[in-house]
Amino acid sequence: MAEIAHLAGVSAPTVSRVLNGHAGVALATRQRVEAVLREHGYRRRGNEPAAIIELVFHALESLWALEIIQGVEQVAREHELAVVLTEMQGRLTPGRAWTEQVLARRPTGVIAVFSELTVQQQSQLAVRSIPLVVLDPTGEPLHQTPSVGATNWSGGMAATRHLLDLGHHRIAMLSGPTQWPCCRARLDGYRAAMDAAGVPVDPDLVRVSTLYVEGGLRDGTELLRLPDPPTAIFTANDLQALGVYEAARRAGLRIPDDLSVVGFDDLSFTQWAGPPMTTVRQPLVQMGAAAARMIIALADGQRLEQHRVELATTLVVRESTAPPRQA
Amino acid sequence: MAEIAHLAGVSAPTVSRVLNGHAGVALATRQRVEAVLREHGYRRRGNEPAAIIELVFHALESLWALEIIQGVEQVAREHELAVVLTEMQGRLTPGRAWTEQVLARRPTGVIAVFSELTVQQQSQLAVRSIPLVVLDPTGEPLHQTPSVGATNWSGGMAATRHLLDLGHHRIAMLSGPTQWPCCRARLDGYRAAMDAAGVPVDPDLVRVSTLYVEGGLRDGTELLRLPDPPTAIFTANDLQALGVYEAARRAGLRIPDDLSVVGFDDLSFTQWAGPPMTTVRQPLVQMGAAAARMIIALADGQRLEQHRVELATTLVVRESTAPPRQA
Repeated sequence: MAEIAHLAGVSAPTVSRVLNGHAGVALATRQRVEAVLREHGYRRRGNEPAAIIELVFHALESLWALEIIQGVEQVAREHELAVVLTEMQGRLTPGRAWTEQVLARRPTGVIAVFSELTVQQQSQLAVRSIPLVVLDPTGEPLHQTPSVGATNWSGGMAATRHLLDLGHHRIAMLSGPTQWPCCRARLDGYRAAMDAAGVPVDPDLVRVSTLYVEGGLRDGTELLRLPDPPTAIFTANDLQALGVYEAARRAGLRIPDDLSVVGFDDLSFTQWAGPPMTTVRQPLVQMGAAAARMIIALADGQRLEQHRVELATTLVVRESTAPPRQA
Repeated sequence: MAEIAHLAGVSAPTVSRVLNGHAGVALATRQRVEAVLREHGYRRRGNEPAAIIELVFHALESLWALEIIQGVEQVAREHELAVVLTEMQGRLTPGRAWTEQVLARRPTGVIAVFSELTVQQQSQLAVRSIPLVVLDPTGEPLHQTPSVGATNWSGGMAATRHLLDLGHHRIAMLSGPTQWPCCRARLDGYRAAMDAAGVPVDPDLVRVSTLYVEGGLRDGTELLRLPDPPTAIFTANDLQALGVYEAARRAGLRIPDDLSVVGFDDLSFTQWAGPPMTTVRQPLVQMGAAAARMIIALADGQRLEQHRVELATTLVVRESTAPPRQA
């Protein structure tokens, strides 16, 4: 400890504060201490890391989560790593208890899905050389955290272009919260496709909603009640799209005859929805697998070929989209 | 080891074989050795158990699994236990590698969902005082393993009675594999309701299928092609029911006008299916939580109030059931 403090040019209590993730250490100081700690192999003072990958979800509530788990499991199994699953009951940042437990378990790495670790938490992992990979991060990655996602912007483009090609002009977008990069990218893709087709975006037709069925139902209902309602709605995920299905049903509108709907994710139930849903497929299993492979490479001391991996989305056309009814 | 062997009246190599889960030890002998091992606190020779619950699934493929995970997570979190999740890629019995890893991790307990541990595996856990709880076991529990399930038989009764009350007589049952107790109980509930109503069961209308959409589609199609097809189909799970939806669509039949369908599970997508599905709700989150609570009680040395816990199913009536069309 004294040697680290000396090398970093700080006091021993400061090193201790960095190790324990306490606040009140200037960013530059913390980074200097972290660098010295890493260089001098702080980790090697303990045992080898446990054969564990920590997988943290903000919530476990749809097939979206399950597919990601499957992908992580596949790769973990190949490498004889156990997967420890933590749900944060909807919170986006894990609490102090989680941090303490994780540090005690000394995992091979941490995958945080749709969530955001604090600077302190990231630092506590970093000084112990525990790699962190984020999947669909909800915040701007700090420390240049390696991340995995899908080509959300291209997916938004493809969905909107499909509706334009069918002849729609009154195309609404139900977005998720736009402070989350994945949601923002889908919305930007929608805008880009509209701009490319020379179709102006009516601000009334763009709504920020929640990523749940209830959000799709509420905001879909409002869209359909507009004096000049949309003939098509592109949603930020499949659950929202199911909510729009229900909004249409309550409004006495048939899909796709009266309203076209495009979802996002391609969760397995969408092919059995009434009608089967046109949606943008995210390769969620592969995204989980990619995150796990990045952890294993990082734990092995390798440099990542790519710091940010985006796997391709694909439009899956089913029966919820059709040309607009002639007025 | 020698002392254990002496007390159990066997040789030291026999004790070793029991500890390592080798075959070739007579049941009575193994049970005697296990009893002596437990009595003399074999476990206490090592450390305290790790703050881990092992959760094993045959497969992670539907919301069914996710709801169970949520329940286990909730209780584990309250007790500051990590949940290690293992998927067996559809196999019903974990392999040797899993056993070795689990014994090395020394978990607080093991929850096996829709799967079956070998006698050896159960014995290896037992001698280390690692409690095991099974959820919807696929085999007859050996060693009187504590288990959690739902009231499958009553659920089958309720679903069938609902169809009978609507006026149906040609009621088909798509069952899951009947060697699995949960599937067998649903089928028996169907038969009991038919018998109670004095409606004979036509053997042509009872099919054993897989618990997937594809099974429901294939066997549902065959049922609908019968010379005297059913007017209602009760399925062993919601995925099968979605397959029947698709079979009906392909046959040009409308649900519920031409065919009534009842599922089993009440996974969240059923309320958004086309049409919203009448189904038998299993309280899966609570079942996962109950299994975790049993593990914690057993690890704490408590006796379970009930060795077999069955949580209540409830019929959820939506829009996929209606009186039969008048011939």
